[in-house]
Amino acid sequence: MGRWEPDAPGRLTQAALELFVERGYEQTTVLDIAERAGVTERTFFRHFADKREVLFDRRNAMQEAVVAAIAAAPETLPPLELAGLGMAAAGDFLEGRREHAGRRAGVIAANPSLQERELLKLAALSDAVATELRQRGVPAPEAGVAAEAGVGVFRRAFERWVADPSAPDLATCVRDSLATLRALAAARPRGRGAVTR
Amino acid sequence: MGRWEPDAPGRLTQAALELFVERGYEQTTVLDIAERAGVTERTFFRHFADKREVLFDRRNAMQEAVVAAIAAAPETLPPLELAGLGMAAAGDFLEGRREHAGRRAGVIAANPSLQERELLKLAALSDAVATELRQRGVPAPEAGVAAEAGVGVFRRAFERWVADPSAPDLATCVRDSLATLRALAAARPRGRGAVTR
Repeated sequence: MGRWEPDAPGRLTQAALELFVERGYEQTTVLDIAERAGVTERTFFRHFADKREVLFDRRNAMQEAVVAAIAAAPETLPPLELAGLGMAAAGDFLEGRREHAGRRAGVIAANPSLQERELLKLAALSDAVATELRQRGVPAPEAGVAAEAGVGVFRRAFERWVADPSAPDLATCVRDSLATLRALAAARPRGRGAVTR
Repeated sequence: MGRWEPDAPGRLTQAALELFVERGYEQTTVLDIAERAGVTERTFFRHFADKREVLFDRRNAMQEAVVAAIAAAPETLPPLELAGLGMAAAGDFLEGRREHAGRRAGVIAANPSLQERELLKLAALSDAVATELRQRGVPAPEAGVAAEAGVGVFRRAFERWVADPSAPDLATCVRDSLATLRALAAARPRGRGAVTR
Protein backbone atom coordinates (compact mmCIF):
# COMPACT_ATOMS: atom_id res chain seq x y z
CA MET A 1 0.00 0.00 0.00
CA GLY A 2 3.01 2.27 -0.20
CA ARG A 3 2.49 3.83 3.21
CA TRP A 4 6.08 4.92 3.31
CA GLU A 5 6.43 6.08 -0.25
CA PRO A 6 7.85 9.58 -0.53
CA ASP A 7 5.68 12.68 -0.76
CA ALA A 8 2.49 11.23 0.70
CA PRO A 9 1.12 14.78 1.30
CA GLY A 10 1.67 15.70 -2.36
CA ARG A 11 -0.02 12.53 -3.58
CA LEU A 12 -2.92 13.03 -1.17
CA THR A 13 -3.44 16.59 -2.41
CA GLN A 14 -3.33 15.42 -6.01
CA ALA A 15 -5.75 12.55 -5.33
CA ALA A 16 -8.12 14.85 -3.44
CA LEU A 17 -8.14 17.38 -6.24
CA GLU A 18 -8.91 14.67 -8.84
CA LEU A 19 -11.78 13.32 -6.74
CA PHE A 20 -13.19 16.77 -5.92
CA VAL A 21 -13.29 17.53 -9.66
CA GLU A 22 -14.76 14.12 -10.58
CA ARG A 23 -17.34 13.69 -7.78
CA GLY A 24 -17.57 17.01 -6.00
CA TYR A 25 -16.10 18.05 -2.65
CA GLU A 26 -19.08 17.01 -0.51
CA GLN A 27 -19.32 13.59 -2.15
CA THR A 28 -15.66 12.70 -1.51
CA THR A 29 -14.57 11.08 1.77
CA VAL A 30 -11.14 11.02 3.40
CA LEU A 31 -11.11 7.25 2.80
CA ASP A 32 -11.70 7.84 -0.94
CA ILE A 33 -8.75 10.22 -1.01
CA ALA A 34 -6.45 7.89 0.92
CA GLU A 35 -7.33 4.95 -1.35
CA ARG A 36 -6.75 6.97 -4.52
CA ALA A 37 -3.35 8.06 -3.16
CA GLY A 38 -2.50 4.48 -2.18
CA VAL A 39 -2.16 5.17 1.54
CA THR A 40 -4.20 4.47 4.66
CA GLU A 41 -6.71 6.84 6.27
CA ARG A 42 -4.31 7.05 9.21
CA THR A 43 -1.60 8.38 6.91
CA PHE A 44 -4.03 11.04 5.67
CA PHE A 45 -4.65 12.23 9.22
CA ARG A 46 -0.94 12.20 9.97
CA HIS A 47 -0.57 14.95 7.35
CA PHE A 48 -3.91 16.83 7.36
CA ALA A 49 -6.38 17.67 10.13
CA ASP A 50 -9.43 17.19 7.89
CA LYS A 51 -10.69 16.97 4.31
CA ARG A 52 -10.65 20.71 3.88
CA GLU A 53 -6.97 21.04 4.81
CA VAL A 54 -5.78 18.72 2.04
CA LEU A 55 -5.92 21.60 -0.48
CA PHE A 56 -3.83 23.92 1.71
CA ASP A 57 -0.13 23.98 2.39
CA ARG A 58 0.38 23.43 6.10
CA ARG A 59 3.90 24.73 5.94
CA ASN A 60 2.89 28.08 4.45
CA ALA A 61 5.77 27.77 2.00
CA MET A 62 4.36 30.41 -0.35
CA GLN A 63 4.02 32.94 2.46
CA GLU A 64 7.59 32.22 3.50
CA ALA A 65 8.77 32.84 -0.07
CA VAL A 66 6.92 36.15 -0.14
CA VAL A 67 8.35 37.34 3.18
CA ALA A 68 11.87 36.20 2.21
CA ALA A 69 11.68 38.12 -1.08
CA ILE A 70 10.65 41.31 0.73
CA ALA A 71 13.36 40.85 3.35
CA ALA A 72 16.00 40.44 0.62
CA ALA A 73 14.89 43.42 -1.50
CA PRO A 74 17.07 46.54 -1.98
CA GLU A 75 16.60 49.20 0.69
CA THR A 76 15.73 51.88 -1.84
CA LEU A 77 12.40 50.34 -2.81
CA PRO A 78 9.23 52.12 -1.62
CA PRO A 79 6.52 50.16 0.30
CA LEU A 80 4.08 49.32 -2.51
CA GLU A 81 6.98 48.18 -4.66
CA LEU A 82 8.15 45.89 -1.85
CA ALA A 83 4.66 44.43 -1.52
CA GLY A 84 4.50 43.95 -5.31
CA LEU A 85 7.90 42.29 -5.33
CA GLY A 86 6.68 39.91 -2.61
CA MET A 87 3.58 39.02 -4.60
CA ALA A 88 5.66 38.51 -7.75
CA ALA A 89 7.66 36.00 -5.67
CA ALA A 90 4.36 34.25 -4.89
CA GLY A 91 3.88 34.11 -8.65
CA ASP A 92 7.28 32.50 -9.13
CA PHE A 93 6.43 30.05 -6.36
CA LEU A 94 3.28 28.84 -8.17
CA GLU A 95 4.75 28.92 -11.68
CA GLY A 96 4.81 25.59 -13.46
CA ARG A 97 1.67 24.45 -11.61
CA ARG A 98 -0.86 26.47 -13.58
CA GLU A 99 -3.15 23.57 -14.46
CA HIS A 100 -3.12 22.32 -10.86
CA ALA A 101 -3.74 25.86 -9.57
CA GLY A 102 -6.64 26.33 -11.98
CA ARG A 103 -8.35 23.09 -10.99
CA ARG A 104 -7.77 23.83 -7.32
CA ALA A 105 -9.22 27.35 -7.75
CA GLY A 106 -12.29 25.88 -9.47
CA VAL A 107 -12.95 23.47 -6.59
CA ILE A 108 -12.43 26.25 -4.03
CA ALA A 109 -14.74 28.67 -5.84
CA ALA A 110 -17.51 26.05 -5.81
CA ASN A 111 -17.33 25.43 -2.04
CA PRO A 112 -17.86 28.28 0.43
CA SER A 113 -16.08 26.47 3.27
CA LEU A 114 -12.96 26.06 1.10
CA GLN A 115 -13.28 29.63 -0.12
CA GLU A 116 -13.38 30.85 3.48
CA ARG A 117 -10.21 28.95 4.29
CA GLU A 118 -8.48 30.36 1.20
CA LEU A 119 -9.46 33.89 2.21
CA LEU A 120 -8.13 33.31 5.72
CA LYS A 121 -4.80 32.26 4.21
CA LEU A 122 -4.72 35.40 2.05
CA ALA A 123 -5.56 37.58 5.08
CA ALA A 124 -2.67 35.91 6.94
CA LEU A 125 -0.45 36.62 3.94
CA SER A 126 -1.47 40.29 4.02
CA ASP A 127 -0.65 40.46 7.74
CA ALA A 128 2.73 38.78 7.16
CA VAL A 129 3.58 41.28 4.39
CA ALA A 130 2.52 44.20 6.62
CA THR A 131 4.67 42.86 9.47
CA GLU A 132 7.70 42.49 7.20
CA LEU A 133 7.22 46.01 5.82
CA ARG A 134 7.06 47.42 9.36
CA GLN A 135 10.25 45.55 10.21
CA ARG A 136 11.84 47.36 7.30
CA GLY A 137 10.83 50.67 8.85
CA VAL A 138 7.61 51.37 6.93
CA PRO A 139 5.12 53.16 9.25
CA ALA A 140 2.13 51.00 10.28
CA PRO A 141 -0.63 52.72 8.23
CA GLU A 142 1.42 52.63 5.02
CA ALA A 143 2.52 49.04 5.69
CA GLY A 144 -1.07 47.92 6.18
CA VAL A 145 -2.43 49.64 3.09
CA ALA A 146 0.50 48.50 0.92
CA ALA A 147 0.06 44.89 2.08
CA GLU A 148 -3.69 44.91 1.39
CA ALA A 149 -3.12 46.46 -2.02
CA GLY A 150 -0.40 43.88 -2.81
CA VAL A 151 -2.62 40.93 -1.92
CA GLY A 152 -5.54 42.48 -3.82
CA VAL A 153 -3.32 42.85 -6.88
CA PHE A 154 -2.24 39.23 -6.47
CA ARG A 155 -5.83 37.94 -6.25
CA ARG A 156 -6.82 39.62 -9.50
CA ALA A 157 -3.57 38.57 -11.21
CA PHE A 158 -4.15 34.99 -10.10
CA GLU A 159 -7.71 35.01 -11.45
CA ARG A 160 -6.44 36.16 -14.83
CA TRP A 161 -3.60 33.63 -14.84
CA VAL A 162 -5.87 30.62 -14.24
CA ALA A 163 -8.78 31.85 -16.39
CA ASP A 164 -6.91 32.97 -19.48
CA PRO A 165 -4.61 30.42 -21.16
CA SER A 166 -3.04 33.22 -23.20
CA ALA A 167 -2.05 35.17 -20.06
CA PRO A 168 1.70 35.44 -19.37
CA ASP A 169 3.38 33.89 -16.32
CA LEU A 170 1.92 34.74 -12.92
CA ALA A 171 4.71 37.09 -11.83
CA THR A 172 4.09 39.10 -15.02
CA CYS A 173 0.34 39.12 -14.33
CA VAL A 174 1.15 40.49 -10.85
CA ARG A 175 3.31 43.25 -12.37
CA ASP A 176 0.53 44.08 -14.85
CA SER A 177 -2.05 44.34 -12.05
CA LEU A 178 0.29 46.52 -10.01
CA ALA A 179 0.74 48.80 -13.02
CA THR A 180 -3.07 48.93 -13.37
CA LEU A 181 -3.36 49.93 -9.71
CA ARG A 182 -0.75 52.66 -10.16
CA ALA A 183 -2.62 54.04 -13.16
CA LEU A 184 -5.95 53.94 -11.27
CA ALA A 185 -4.40 55.71 -8.29
CA ALA A 186 -2.96 58.42 -10.52
CA ALA A 187 -6.36 59.22 -12.06
CA ARG A 188 -7.46 62.07 -9.84
CA PRO A 189 -11.10 62.96 -9.38
CA ARG A 190 -12.39 66.06 -11.10
CA GLY A 191 -15.39 68.15 -10.12
CA ARG A 192 -17.99 67.55 -7.44
CA GLY A 193 -18.51 64.31 -5.56
CA ALA A 194 -14.82 63.62 -5.08
CA VAL A 195 -13.87 61.40 -2.12
CA THR A 196 -10.21 62.40 -2.00
CA ARG A 197 -9.87 65.98 -0.82
CA MET B 1 -41.43 36.08 26.67
CA GLY B 2 -41.84 38.78 24.06
CA ARG B 3 -41.68 36.40 21.09
CA TRP B 4 -43.37 38.99 18.94
CA GLU B 5 -41.54 42.03 20.14
CA PRO B 6 -40.10 44.09 17.34
CA ASP B 7 -36.52 43.66 16.12
CA ALA B 8 -35.90 40.14 17.38
CA PRO B 9 -32.86 39.81 15.03
CA GLY B 10 -31.31 42.99 16.46
CA ARG B 11 -31.84 41.83 20.03
CA LEU B 12 -30.47 38.38 19.25
CA THR B 13 -27.34 39.90 17.72
CA GLN B 14 -26.88 42.17 20.74
CA ALA B 15 -27.43 39.29 23.19
CA ALA B 16 -25.02 37.05 21.26
CA LEU B 17 -22.34 39.69 21.24
CA GLU B 18 -22.67 40.24 25.00
CA LEU B 19 -22.44 36.51 25.67
CA PHE B 20 -19.52 35.97 23.28
CA VAL B 21 -17.61 38.72 25.10
CA GLU B 22 -18.57 37.45 28.59
CA ARG B 23 -18.15 33.69 28.09
CA GLY B 24 -16.44 33.21 24.75
CA TYR B 25 -17.93 32.13 21.43
CA GLU B 26 -17.42 28.39 21.92
CA GLN B 27 -18.95 28.41 25.41
CA THR B 28 -22.17 30.12 24.30
CA THR B 29 -25.15 28.11 23.00
CA VAL B 30 -28.04 29.21 20.79
CA LEU B 31 -30.33 28.60 23.80
CA ASP B 32 -28.21 30.99 25.91
CA ILE B 33 -28.55 33.65 23.22
CA ALA B 34 -32.31 33.17 22.83
CA GLU B 35 -32.84 33.37 26.59
CA ARG B 36 -30.76 36.52 26.94
CA ALA B 37 -32.77 38.12 24.10
CA GLY B 38 -36.05 36.99 25.68
CA VAL B 39 -37.15 34.81 22.76
CA THR B 40 -37.39 31.09 22.06
CA GLU B 41 -34.77 28.99 20.32
CA ARG B 42 -37.27 28.55 17.51
CA THR B 43 -37.35 32.32 17.02
CA PHE B 44 -33.54 32.31 16.82
CA PHE B 45 -33.62 29.77 14.01
CA ARG B 46 -36.35 31.69 12.22
CA HIS B 47 -33.83 34.51 11.78
CA PHE B 48 -30.40 32.82 11.67
CA ALA B 49 -29.20 29.49 10.28
CA ASP B 50 -26.71 28.92 13.10
CA LYS B 51 -24.74 30.52 15.94
CA ARG B 52 -22.14 31.90 13.55
CA GLU B 53 -24.69 33.76 11.41
CA VAL B 54 -26.00 35.83 14.32
CA LEU B 55 -23.11 38.31 13.91
CA PHE B 56 -23.75 38.80 10.19
CA ASP B 57 -26.40 40.77 8.39
CA ARG B 58 -28.45 38.38 6.29
CA ARG B 59 -29.84 41.19 4.20
CA ASN B 60 -26.43 42.49 3.17
CA ALA B 61 -27.64 46.01 3.85
CA MET B 62 -24.12 47.46 3.97
CA GLN B 63 -23.25 45.98 0.58
CA GLU B 64 -26.45 47.40 -0.85
CA ALA B 65 -25.54 50.85 0.49
CA VAL B 66 -22.09 50.58 -1.11
CA VAL B 67 -23.46 49.55 -4.51
CA ALA B 68 -26.18 52.22 -4.39
CA ALA B 69 -23.61 54.93 -3.61
CA ILE B 70 -21.47 53.88 -6.59
CA ALA B 71 -24.52 53.70 -8.87
CA ALA B 72 -25.54 57.24 -7.84
CA ALA B 73 -22.08 58.81 -8.21
CA PRO B 74 -21.29 61.45 -10.85
CA GLU B 75 -20.19 60.05 -14.20
CA THR B 76 -16.95 61.98 -14.21
CA LEU B 77 -15.41 60.02 -11.33
CA PRO B 78 -12.58 57.60 -12.18
CA PRO B 79 -12.76 53.91 -11.03
CA LEU B 80 -10.69 54.03 -7.83
CA GLU B 81 -12.58 57.13 -6.75
CA LEU B 82 -15.88 55.30 -7.31
CA ALA B 83 -14.65 52.37 -5.22
CA GLY B 84 -13.49 54.77 -2.49
CA LEU B 85 -16.83 56.58 -2.54
CA GLY B 86 -18.57 53.20 -2.13
CA MET B 87 -16.39 52.31 0.85
CA ALA B 88 -16.98 55.74 2.40
CA ALA B 89 -20.70 54.91 2.15
CA ALA B 90 -19.96 51.71 4.08
CA GLY B 91 -18.37 53.98 6.67
CA ASP B 92 -21.52 56.11 6.87
CA PHE B 93 -23.55 52.93 7.18
CA LEU B 94 -21.61 51.78 10.26
CA GLU B 95 -21.28 55.22 11.84
CA GLY B 96 -22.89 55.58 15.26
CA ARG B 97 -22.21 51.91 16.04
CA ARG B 98 -18.50 52.17 16.76
CA GLU B 99 -18.59 50.47 20.17
CA HIS B 100 -20.73 47.63 18.80
CA ALA B 101 -18.45 47.31 15.76
CA GLY B 102 -15.37 47.20 17.98
CA ARG B 103 -16.73 44.47 20.24
CA ARG B 104 -17.93 42.50 17.23
CA ALA B 105 -14.52 42.83 15.59
CA GLY B 106 -12.84 41.58 18.78
CA VAL B 107 -15.03 38.48 18.91
CA ILE B 108 -14.47 37.80 15.22
CA ALA B 109 -10.68 38.22 15.47
CA ALA B 110 -10.61 35.64 18.28
CA ASN B 111 -12.50 32.95 16.32
CA PRO B 112 -11.15 31.69 12.98
CA SER B 113 -14.54 30.37 11.85
CA LEU B 114 -16.09 33.82 12.36
CA GLN B 115 -13.07 35.45 10.74
CA GLU B 116 -13.51 33.21 7.70
CA ARG B 117 -17.15 34.21 7.35
CA GLU B 118 -16.25 37.90 7.68
CA LEU B 119 -13.63 37.53 4.95
CA LEU B 120 -16.15 35.79 2.69
CA LYS B 121 -18.50 38.75 3.17
CA LEU B 122 -15.71 41.17 2.27
CA ALA B 123 -14.82 39.12 -0.82
CA ALA B 124 -18.49 39.26 -1.85
CA LEU B 125 -18.40 43.01 -1.29
CA SER B 126 -15.33 43.30 -3.54
CA ASP B 127 -17.11 41.28 -6.24
CA ALA B 128 -20.23 43.46 -5.94
CA VAL B 129 -18.15 46.63 -6.28
CA ALA B 130 -16.32 45.20 -9.33
CA THR B 131 -19.66 44.24 -10.92
CA GLU B 132 -21.09 47.73 -10.35
CA LEU B 133 -17.95 49.35 -11.79
CA ARG B 134 -18.20 47.16 -14.90
CA GLN B 135 -21.85 48.16 -15.27
CA ARG B 136 -20.66 51.76 -15.31
CA GLY B 137 -18.37 50.93 -18.19
CA VAL B 138 -15.08 50.32 -16.36
CA PRO B 139 -13.10 47.55 -18.15
CA ALA B 140 -12.91 44.27 -16.18
CA PRO B 141 -9.23 44.35 -15.13
CA GLU B 142 -9.48 47.92 -13.84
CA ALA B 143 -12.81 47.19 -12.14
CA GLY B 144 -11.35 44.17 -10.35
CA VAL B 145 -8.19 45.90 -9.16
CA ALA B 146 -10.10 49.04 -8.08
CA ALA B 147 -12.62 46.94 -6.11
CA GLU B 148 -9.87 44.96 -4.36
CA ALA B 149 -8.01 48.15 -3.53
CA GLY B 150 -11.21 49.76 -2.23
CA VAL B 151 -12.02 46.87 0.08
CA GLY B 152 -8.38 46.70 1.23
CA VAL B 153 -8.50 50.41 2.05
CA PHE B 154 -11.74 49.83 3.95
CA ARG B 155 -10.30 46.96 6.01
CA ARG B 156 -7.36 49.05 7.21
CA ALA B 157 -9.59 52.09 7.82
CA PHE B 158 -11.97 49.93 9.84
CA GLU B 159 -9.12 48.53 11.95
CA ARG B 160 -7.99 52.06 12.77
CA TRP B 161 -11.53 53.22 13.53
CA VAL B 162 -12.23 50.49 16.07
CA ALA B 163 -8.72 50.41 17.61
CA ASP B 164 -8.10 54.13 18.06
CA PRO B 165 -10.71 56.11 20.03
CA SER B 166 -9.14 59.35 18.77
CA ALA B 167 -9.64 58.34 15.12
CA PRO B 168 -12.18 60.40 13.14
CA ASP B 169 -15.42 58.96 11.74
CA LEU B 170 -15.11 55.84 9.57
CA ALA B 171 -15.79 57.57 6.24
CA THR B 172 -12.92 59.95 7.02
CA CYS B 173 -10.68 57.00 7.95
CA VAL B 174 -11.57 55.49 4.54
CA ARG B 175 -10.64 58.74 2.78
CA ASP B 176 -7.35 58.87 4.73
CA SER B 177 -6.49 55.28 3.76
CA LEU B 178 -7.32 56.00 0.13
CA ALA B 179 -5.03 59.03 0.24
CA THR B 180 -2.32 56.79 1.73
CA LEU B 181 -2.78 54.33 -1.14
CA ARG B 182 -2.54 57.13 -3.71
CA ALA B 183 0.69 58.37 -2.13
CA LEU B 184 2.12 54.84 -2.03
CA ALA B 185 1.20 54.25 -5.67
CA ALA B 186 2.84 57.52 -6.70
CA ALA B 187 6.17 56.58 -5.07
CA ARG B 188 7.98 55.12 -8.05
CA PRO B 189 10.77 52.64 -7.62
CA ARG B 190 14.31 53.83 -8.20
CA GLY B 191 17.31 51.76 -9.16
CA ARG B 192 17.70 48.02 -9.44
CA GLY B 193 15.20 45.46 -8.22
CA ALA B 194 12.13 47.36 -9.38
CA VAL B 195 8.98 45.32 -10.04
CA THR B 196 7.16 47.90 -12.11
CA ARG B 197 8.81 48.31 -15.46
